[in-house]
Amino acid sequence: MQIAVLGTGMVGQAHAAKLSELGHEVFIGTRDVQKSLAKAGGQITEPFGEWAKQHPKVKVVEFQEAIKHGDLIVEALSGNAVVETLKSCEKRLAGKTLIDISNPLDFSNGDFKLTVCNDDSLGEQVQRALPSVKVVKAFNTVNAAVQVNPESVASGDHHLFIAGDHKESKYFVNEIAMEWYGWKNVIDLGGIKSARGMEMILPLWVNLFTVMGTPKFNFKVTQWDSVVLD
Amino acid sequence: MQIAVLGTGMVGQAHAAKLSELGHEVFIGTRDVQKSLAKAGGQITEPFGEWAKQHPKVKVVEFQEAIKHGDLIVEALSGNAVVETLKSCEKRLAGKTLIDISNPLDFSNGDFKLTVCNDDSLGEQVQRALPSVKVVKAFNTVNAAVQVNPESVASGDHHLFIAGDHKESKYFVNEIAMEWYGWKNVIDLGGIKSARGMEMILPLWVNLFTVMGTPKFNFKVTQWDSVVLD
Repeated sequence: MQIAVLGTGMVGQAHAAKLSELGHEVFIGTRDVQKSLAKAGGQITEPFGEWAKQHPKVKVVEFQEAIKHGDLIVEALSGNAVVETLKSCEKRLAGKTLIDISNPLDFSNGDFKLTVCNDDSLGEQVQRALPSVKVVKAFNTVNAAVQVNPESVASGDHHLFIAGDHKESKYFVNEIAMEWYGWKNVIDLGGIKSARGMEMILPLWVNLFTVMGTPKFNFKVTQWDSVVLD
Repeated sequence: MQIAVLGTGMVGQAHAAKLSELGHEVFIGTRDVQKSLAKAGGQITEPFGEWAKQHPKVKVVEFQEAIKHGDLIVEALSGNAVVETLKSCEKRLAGKTLIDISNPLDFSNGDFKLTVCNDDSLGEQVQRALPSVKVVKAFNTVNAAVQVNPESVASGDHHLFIAGDHKESKYFVNEIAMEWYGWKNVIDLGGIKSARGMEMILPLWVNLFTVMGTPKFNFKVTQWDSVVLD
C-alpha cells in the first residue's frame, strides 16, 4: 500500500520506519524537504537527515506530494501546525482516511498546557476543518516507540484508544493497530468527540513520564477484555 | 480514630461505611441533617435516610460538627459546592489532613464538561482557598465502590493516584489506601498541581463508563511496579 506519513518528528519517523519495514511504500511529507534534511536532531531524536539515510526506501517529499500518493494518511504533525497544514492540502486529502496522532501541546510558558480541551479537541477541529476527510484519532496516548511496537510494554497487555465518526475508517485503523503493529487491545470510544478524553489524558501522561523517568508505559483498562467497535 | 466524611452522596456513603466497619468513629457531615435524612435516593443510590438506618454507628451531623470531631477529613462533596462549603468551616479545618475526592463535573448543558481544567484544578482551588489545610487529592479517578474496595476490580491489579503539597499527609493517605482499603499500587504524582491530570482524566473515564456499561474498572499503568513517594 502507498502511505503518506505527515511530519518528520519522532512519531512520524516511528510510523514511517515501521510501515516501510512491513513492505509498504512510504512517503514522508514535510513543508520543506531540504530544510528538514538539514535540520539538527532533538533532545532524544537524531537529525532527520541521518534517519532518512538509514531508511532509503522511505521517500522524503513535500506534503502535497506525499498526500497525492498516500491511500492512507498518518498525520503526526505538531499540534499548532495541524489544521493549517492539512487545510492547505484539502483537495488531495478528500475522501481519504487520516489517522490523527497529534496532541494540542503547549509548553510555551514553561508550564505544560493544552491549547484546546474540555469543550473541543484537536481531533474535532481537524474533522470540522476537513469534512471530506475521514479522521480517526488514535495512538496519541502513547509514546512513539510504543505506538508501533506495543509489545515492548508489558507484553502488549495494555490499551489503545480510537475515536472517529467514520466506521469503516475505524475498522481499518483497528486492523492496522492489531494486525500490522501488534496491538492486542483496542477500545473504540465512539465519535470524534471522544478525542477530548484522549487528548485530556496528556497532562496525566506527562506527569507519569516525569515521575517514572521513562515514556515506555501505557494505560491498561482493567476488567476490559474485548475489542468493541460501535 | 475519629473521622469526618463530608458529603452524603455515593462517595461519602462508601467511605463512611468502610471506615466505620474498620472500627473508626465516623461523623458524616451535611449542610442540613433533617433535609439529608428525608432526601429521596438517586438513580443508583438509595435514600440517605435508609443508608443511615443501616449504618447506626455512623453519626449524621452538620459540617461544622463533623469537622470538629474529625482528626482526618474525607471530603466527597459535589464539585460546585466544595470551595464554598470548606471555606465556611476554615477555622475548624486548620492543620488537618483533608482528602479531596471531588471532581469539577458539569453536566448542566446536557454535555459533559469540567468547570475548571488545564491551567488550574479543583484540588489547587481548595488548597489555595484553605492554605492552613493539608489537601491530598486522591480517589477521584475511580468509582466509589472501587475506591474503598480496590480488589473488586482485577484483584486490585491497578493504580491509585495521589497528589498534594504536604508530604506527611500523603504518607498518611498512602497508608489509608494500602493498609485500610487494600490498594496494592499507589502512585504519588507530586504536588497539588498534579490534581490537573487526575481531574482531566474524567472525560475519558466517563467515556469508558458509557462504552463499557459499568463503572467497575480502573486504569493500570503498565511497566510500573513500585510505590513511589516523593
